[in-house]
Amino acid sequence: MAGAGVFSEILDGDAYKYYSNGEWKKSSSGKTVAIVNPTTRKTQYKVQACTQEEVNNVMELAKSAQKTWAKTPLWKRAELLHKAAAILKEHKAPIAECLIKEIAKPAKDSVTEVVRSGDLISYTAEEGVRILGEGKFLVSDSFPGNERTKYCLTSKIPLGVVLAIPPFNYPVNLAVSKIGPALIAGNSLVLKPPTQGAVSCLHMVHCFHLAGFPKGLISCVTGKGSEIGDFLTMHPGVNCISFTGGDTGISISKKAGMIPLQMELGGKDACIVLEDADLDLVAANIIKGGFSYSGQRCTAIKVVLVMESVADALVEKVKARVAKLRIGPPEDDCDITPVVTESSANFIEGLVMDAKDKGATFCQQYKREGNLIWPLLLDNVRPDMRIAWEEPFGPILPVIRINSVEEGIHHCNASNFGLQGCVFTKDINKAMLISDAMETGTVQINSAPARGPDHFPFQGLKDSGIGSQGITNSIDMMTKVKTTVINLPSPSYSMG
Amino acid sequence: MAGAGVFSEILDGDAYKYYSNGEWKKSSSGKTVAIVNPTTRKTQYKVQACTQEEVNNVMELAKSAQKTWAKTPLWKRAELLHKAAAILKEHKAPIAECLIKEIAKPAKDSVTEVVRSGDLISYTAEEGVRILGEGKFLVSDSFPGNERTKYCLTSKIPLGVVLAIPPFNYPVNLAVSKIGPALIAGNSLVLKPPTQGAVSCLHMVHCFHLAGFPKGLISCVTGKGSEIGDFLTMHPGVNCISFTGGDTGISISKKAGMIPLQMELGGKDACIVLEDADLDLVAANIIKGGFSYSGQRCTAIKVVLVMESVADALVEKVKARVAKLRIGPPEDDCDITPVVTESSANFIEGLVMDAKDKGATFCQQYKREGNLIWPLLLDNVRPDMRIAWEEPFGPILPVIRINSVEEGIHHCNASNFGLQGCVFTKDINKAMLISDAMETGTVQINSAPARGPDHFPFQGLKDSGIGSQGITNSIDMMTKVKTTVINLPSPSYSMG
Amino acid sequence: MAGAGVFSEILDGDAYKYYSNGEWKKSSSGKTVAIVNPTTRKTQYKVQACTQEEVNNVMELAKSAQKTWAKTPLWKRAELLHKAAAILKEHKAPIAECLIKEIAKPAKDSVTEVVRSGDLISYTAEEGVRILGEGKFLVSDSFPGNERTKYCLTSKIPLGVVLAIPPFNYPVNLAVSKIGPALIAGNSLVLKPPTQGAVSCLHMVHCFHLAGFPKGLISCVTGKGSEIGDFLTMHPGVNCISFTGGDTGISISKKAGMIPLQMELGGKDACIVLEDADLDLVAANIIKGGFSYSGQRCTAIKVVLVMESVADALVEKVKARVAKLRIGPPEDDCDITPVVTESSANFIEGLVMDAKDKGATFCQQYKREGNLIWPLLLDNVRPDMRIAWEEPFGPILPVIRINSVEEGIHHCNASNFGLQGCVFTKDINKAMLISDAMETGTVQINSAPARGPDHFPFQGLKDSGIGSQGITNSIDMMTKVKTTVINLPSPSYSMG
Amino acid sequence: MAGAGVFSEILDGDAYKYYSNGEWKKSSSGKTVAIVNPTTRKTQYKVQACTQEEVNNVMELAKSAQKTWAKTPLWKRAELLHKAAAILKEHKAPIAECLIKEIAKPAKDSVTEVVRSGDLISYTAEEGVRILGEGKFLVSDSFPGNERTKYCLTSKIPLGVVLAIPPFNYPVNLAVSKIGPALIAGNSLVLKPPTQGAVSCLHMVHCFHLAGFPKGLISCVTGKGSEIGDFLTMHPGVNCISFTGGDTGISISKKAGMIPLQMELGGKDACIVLEDADLDLVAANIIKGGFSYSGQRCTAIKVVLVMESVADALVEKVKARVAKLRIGPPEDDCDITPVVTESSANFIEGLVMDAKDKGATFCQQYKREGNLIWPLLLDNVRPDMRIAWEEPFGPILPVIRINSVEEGIHHCNASNFGLQGCVFTKDINKAMLISDAMETGTVQINSAPARGPDHFPFQGLKDSGIGSQGITNSIDMMTKVKTTVINLPSPSYSMG
Repeated sequence: MAGAGVFSEILDGDAYKYYSNGEWKKSSSGKTVAIVNPTTRKTQYKVQACTQEEVNNVMELAKSAQKTWAKTPLWKRAELLHKAAAILKEHKAPIAECLIKEIAKPAKDSVTEVVRSGDLISYTAEEGVRILGEGKFLVSDSFPGNERTKYCLTSKIPLGVVLAIPPFNYPVNLAVSKIGPALIAGNSLVLKPPTQGAVSCLHMVHCFHLAGFPKGLISCVTGKGSEIGDFLTMHPGVNCISFTGGDTGISISKKAGMIPLQMELGGKDACIVLEDADLDLVAANIIKGGFSYSGQRCTAIKVVLVMESVADALVEKVKARVAKLRIGPPEDDCDITPVVTESSANFIEGLVMDAKDKGATFCQQYKREGNLIWPLLLDNVRPDMRIAWEEPFGPILPVIRINSVEEGIHHCNASNFGLQGCVFTKDINKAMLISDAMETGTVQINSAPARGPDHFPFQGLKDSGIGSQGITNSIDMMTKVKTTVINLPSPSYSMG
Repeated sequence: MAGAGVFSEILDGDAYKYYSNGEWKKSSSGKTVAIVNPTTRKTQYKVQACTQEEVNNVMELAKSAQKTWAKTPLWKRAELLHKAAAILKEHKAPIAECLIKEIAKPAKDSVTEVVRSGDLISYTAEEGVRILGEGKFLVSDSFPGNERTKYCLTSKIPLGVVLAIPPFNYPVNLAVSKIGPALIAGNSLVLKPPTQGAVSCLHMVHCFHLAGFPKGLISCVTGKGSEIGDFLTMHPGVNCISFTGGDTGISISKKAGMIPLQMELGGKDACIVLEDADLDLVAANIIKGGFSYSGQRCTAIKVVLVMESVADALVEKVKARVAKLRIGPPEDDCDITPVVTESSANFIEGLVMDAKDKGATFCQQYKREGNLIWPLLLDNVRPDMRIAWEEPFGPILPVIRINSVEEGIHHCNASNFGLQGCVFTKDINKAMLISDAMETGTVQINSAPARGPDHFPFQGLKDSGIGSQGITNSIDMMTKVKTTVINLPSPSYSMG
Repeated sequence: MAGAGVFSEILDGDAYKYYSNGEWKKSSSGKTVAIVNPTTRKTQYKVQACTQEEVNNVMELAKSAQKTWAKTPLWKRAELLHKAAAILKEHKAPIAECLIKEIAKPAKDSVTEVVRSGDLISYTAEEGVRILGEGKFLVSDSFPGNERTKYCLTSKIPLGVVLAIPPFNYPVNLAVSKIGPALIAGNSLVLKPPTQGAVSCLHMVHCFHLAGFPKGLISCVTGKGSEIGDFLTMHPGVNCISFTGGDTGISISKKAGMIPLQMELGGKDACIVLEDADLDLVAANIIKGGFSYSGQRCTAIKVVLVMESVADALVEKVKARVAKLRIGPPEDDCDITPVVTESSANFIEGLVMDAKDKGATFCQQYKREGNLIWPLLLDNVRPDMRIAWEEPFGPILPVIRINSVEEGIHHCNASNFGLQGCVFTKDINKAMLISDAMETGTVQINSAPARGPDHFPFQGLKDSGIGSQGITNSIDMMTKVKTTVINLPSPSYSMG
Repeated sequence: MAGAGVFSEILDGDAYKYYSNGEWKKSSSGKTVAIVNPTTRKTQYKVQACTQEEVNNVMELAKSAQKTWAKTPLWKRAELLHKAAAILKEHKAPIAECLIKEIAKPAKDSVTEVVRSGDLISYTAEEGVRILGEGKFLVSDSFPGNERTKYCLTSKIPLGVVLAIPPFNYPVNLAVSKIGPALIAGNSLVLKPPTQGAVSCLHMVHCFHLAGFPKGLISCVTGKGSEIGDFLTMHPGVNCISFTGGDTGISISKKAGMIPLQMELGGKDACIVLEDADLDLVAANIIKGGFSYSGQRCTAIKVVLVMESVADALVEKVKARVAKLRIGPPEDDCDITPVVTESSANFIEGLVMDAKDKGATFCQQYKREGNLIWPLLLDNVRPDMRIAWEEPFGPILPVIRINSVEEGIHHCNASNFGLQGCVFTKDINKAMLISDAMETGTVQINSAPARGPDHFPFQGLKDSGIGSQGITNSIDMMTKVKTTVINLPSPSYSMG
């Protein structure tokens, strides 16, 4: 159970502690932040409201711990990560419980998130052993005018202190996708969890604690954005920010100093459906891609662009599947659960009302109870509706009927977002040409957008982010290049 | 003109000299080998019948020249290759003339071969500068139990003396695809040209001579296979054999010592045509793939496996295009020209007669004049006919009608060859699944098999060869790995 | 001659034009910016003072031209770059003349800069052909739980519009090191040259114009920083900034949006000299590394950290070599020429006076005439002197005597800069351990810091920059990742 | 205990069974081969004398099992290998017992061999997941004249059936260094263990059996070389031979067909000692490098080439350490144990007698009891002695005094072997120049030759072998390239 057993030391009364210097601590602020359960709309948990001084302290410890960690053999770093992964998977139940209570994630998906996170950590460990243990050996006589007198050895070295800010929707998974690469690469890590999801993160961090990482190497501070948000992202001790979330990422980018940024922000992933597509496959993917976790996913399908000639048929098939979705509390493992906050629900409702006003076709009746919004397919959406461009982050999916492939590509590319997109067609030529033309970080041919498998590169273009993720690329992003050049007194060529 | 102008020094009376120690020489044998023009069937050229002693001498020079060449900066090696490429392209006319006369290659294709060879040399030079100038820098702490005390630098170093044996059909192009990689990688090179094509090769070698490569680095010996064939391939001074040709390659492999082999032997490239294929595209590719240079290409389409339901339509379309092929001498730039030797023509005729006896449908009447064989499409070929399995290396193409994709794949995979294959379908799923299932070095989706573009990997499986070619892979094949390990007295981690 | 011959069209009366939409234009501002010759201290050239509207126009053109350029075959992009390189080298004389007059670079070095720039462009072209033509092909069954149903193709695609801001000291070379990678990678390019060096840049840009690049792809705007500086760097149309220069880079970083930054800022490159070093080699490198182009180089040796026991001997050797330096105008190819501006000279003088006040030993008498400062070695410099930490960017070199290797490493790492460093020792163990310990982007063993050869990675840590340069890394930096995932209906494994 | 517990099923009476089709079987020959304990010189174990028919059967099963295995997800292959590794490490005791009894390996080293083998298997599994899951994605527009119409996907696919032949000295470790790469790459594996070491191998194979690999995928046949040796290496069903051992490898190479060969044969690793070397470090490395496992190692130091001026001092230091070596049975964990066979001992004695006759200085008295030979340092060895060139594979080490570095390099390079070499010097320039000049697969600077760490490349030049090993390179060697080319109807460029 959350906060119990091995986790009892992270709880103090009814408030969860924060993690600093290898210990669980209460904030000197004496204040806490309440976390509201999206289903019950009542306070579920409390976390510490850390102070700027506590942040400063964490940063100093992180800087110092990193220097020692960078001198730890790669295989030992990997060994600790494997240990953390095993402990995490072992404790999937209490952590999943937090996810259910904090972010109303369906029960089974909550367990899956934890297990998949363990796999991700292990894969990251082994990947890092290889990426970081191999540099280039360059010689000077490649370049005109040079003899072979200079031997250049390139290494990938740690950045220093990495600030990780995961979003509410996958607080555990998107935290470890930053923590794993940061640690294996020799960095220290400061985690600022989202408010919803903070307690899940604290439990996860405790698994790393139990694995025995050095003191100060990993920290987790909770608190109010207004107090420590900008303070963290603009902190001179931070050498890299890895952020997943919304628009905030853009303003962080504008304020951050000369440090590498890994940003994954919003998306408006288009699903282009051609006339020759397998409509059952498309419908199944629209349900999975559009309504999983109630649409609260970066890579959710957020607009369907379907050729007019098959639109009726497709809409029918999707409607039939929507009708089978189970709506209710996450504890019952329902498909559609309450969205994360009331303000989210209100925002979604605003998009729905705008679409209604402007004449979209409602395939289902709009229904809402508290944060729970019934799944809704909006047909005949037109470009003048907000839902055509904005991301609801809820179980609301617009369908735009198109008369040509070009129209679909144009709509996709007119978005300020560029995360993923998908195209459904059997035709190999169209599939390749359209995926080349779509200006998004990834194009899925004949499947819904997806972050994984986690070793694939994953990136957003335009306002959807900067930097490429996926395990390999994330490790790379959390390193910098250092070179050593051996200068010889006379040319030397390797013989054999 | 061949043997004239800058090339006059390679000719002595009516016999071409061989190239050794940076000079053009007559063989001490006093004998020559005659090269018969496939069109006129009369002796066109004579080349030296080199002796084993002359081969020994060439090998010694090659060994010695290589040591110095290996100590030449990469960019200087590249500079010389660029120079040779430019000279080759400048002299495309006389070399193309040789190709026309020796191997009856159509006039335009002959020019193209020379120009493409120049491009290949230049690309190889620049590729080599990069591949060879970059090794790996590995550290010991990746492996369990090790600290970071060992720094391993890996280099790609030359093999030594490379023996290059190109085939008659692309004597210039398939020679430079061996010479370029060998030289940029720091090897010396002994060229044994095919009898038909020898004079083209000698002209090409002279372009390297004019570029100013060091003496002894490149040699070209001509002569009778019975005298110097095995002597060359089993010579202890040879450190690598790069061979393109027929079955001989297998016996060379069995006799050669412990040296790297790059073998590209025969093929029986299948063209699988599904029901949804664009039949005009298929027909155009069958003509190009099956009848270019009268089918005398490793990667020619050598059997069409077409779904019964579209077979009639496809055969009609191919027939119509066959009817437009121009048949005659290479000087007139005809599409179909005489095959390289009378024995080849006889072998092809044998396959045709076998097919006739066993009931194949002749889409055209069989016709032959000397070495000139009219293009012939054989429909309704069955597995009991020799033409279903053997490669004619002539303008004869069998069509096997299939009733399922599996049948097509099975026929393709039952061959002892595995060079390339192609599949025509619009369906992206079928295209990928079938190409994965076909056991050939390369599968082309919706195009005829092709060696190029020359930077793509190119390889034959099973009896079709060993080793991967293409510019990058050929350079790799012509190197070996050498490592230097710096052992430190105490662990050291790169900081920054 | 500058502004004459093929360059006459870039000049209008006594003012150089700016380059936009493939044409040379006068600014609608009607104003010009004067460029003062550091030697004569009189106005040498005038360039256009462009307006924000003109910048906007250039940005729009750049955006549009880029879309077409991104659809140009790699080899064609390379071909145009080769052409520009050849034209540049052909016109080395007039461009070198500009360098002499604008930045007082010694005559021979000025020619070298242009020629080396041509080589760099050509190498970049060929490198790009390879880097950009090769992505990864990943499959899903690497990750636990996945079958082989997803094929991921990764491409490197252009960023869009690259803003290049080179510094005064290598205005041509450090411009093309940004232009080449940007263009081969499919980006368009807006160049903002430094005031001193602007006319050299305009000439160089004209070579690209003559090579025939598409209209709008390359632009060059000149003007006052106060008018168009921030306007350019904060322009929403800019997708990447590549900047080389001083502190400004840090403030650009803080203001720039969510775009990749390649920053190479200042350095305080240390030269650590151990007791076993070859002191003649060290002295020669200190002269070359510390006084070339009067110390106005990012990678100049900016502080010598020498073991006390060999300090006297080393200082003597350096003094003897300093005495041989020729001081005077760049036209006479003197070693030490006037520094770039009067304010630079004043700043340098300030550092010298501070050192004097605090008791540094002057190995030569301090001497200055206008912008010309005589070379000066300051011995017995201590950490309380400004010269111990600040970069003079002039011919003034401090020597700090150390009593242990650790002391030297500590001083090096205490700097806010981390560009390069060097260590002189014969001992292989010390060389490797010290280079690992020095926290700079590159450590040179037994040679002065150096940017080249240009294919080696080059990067500054800490306040010295972000991102790695060198030809390969610069091309990489000017691309982003895009992936296409083919999803198959059933697992497929490649057979053969 | 060997043959007991989980291993009881591999034993039948007093004879060990062979492994075929996932079962332990008795040979139909009814015959066994005796394995003599080198210490007791009595028969220790018996293994099956398999027949050619049984080999044929194993080959057929291997071919069939491979096809299915190649369709197993990479992570599942890895999972099975991890399982085998864990089982192997769990049973280190009985397997180490076999090593002690069969090959007289000292007790602790025997345990180490098994444990290190487990680590190697796990590392190989994870390495393979990465290497095999990543191919290249190439496009056509890199090469002159091409648009971007061809997308080439390259895969590494299995070779088929790999024949692994490890040597007696590391029968477990050098078997798994072949088995691991073969299996993770999708090949099936036929193991032919050495006679001495066969029972260790059978135990190791049983660990793979217990891990649950598919039937027929792994086989282990024992028997007489005269009966099944050539039959195996020339078997048409074999697609790759990975052999470690002596001269036999060269004759295998000459008889094998057109298949990839990975050969690691003998070595005569030189240890060049310069005047400035740390003689204590050298002496320690000579003892470890020359006398570990009584010198029965491919990478043992087999000749010391020491500068005359430090030779006396070095010889004294080595002598002092030799005097401390413990000589006796492997059960007592002695340093020097009996050599593997009586014929080996006789051969070694022959070398010693030759050296004695020709005047070498004996630093110790020569002593032998049965197969046990006391460690012997031979000083003042000259090139006319056999010991200067031949490898004793015993505890006998020749010292040649040299007067120049060149003399040392010359001796090293005059050998027909080229496995490893080492150079001891503090001087960074000499270290690099000499290691470049030594014509061996690896040069160790300041350490004895060594195969590991196992992820480093490892290769022999000249008669020492072909192909590069180490985990990564071995996996590569056990694959071939396959490419799929998607041909598009019109050029397509990836936008974003």
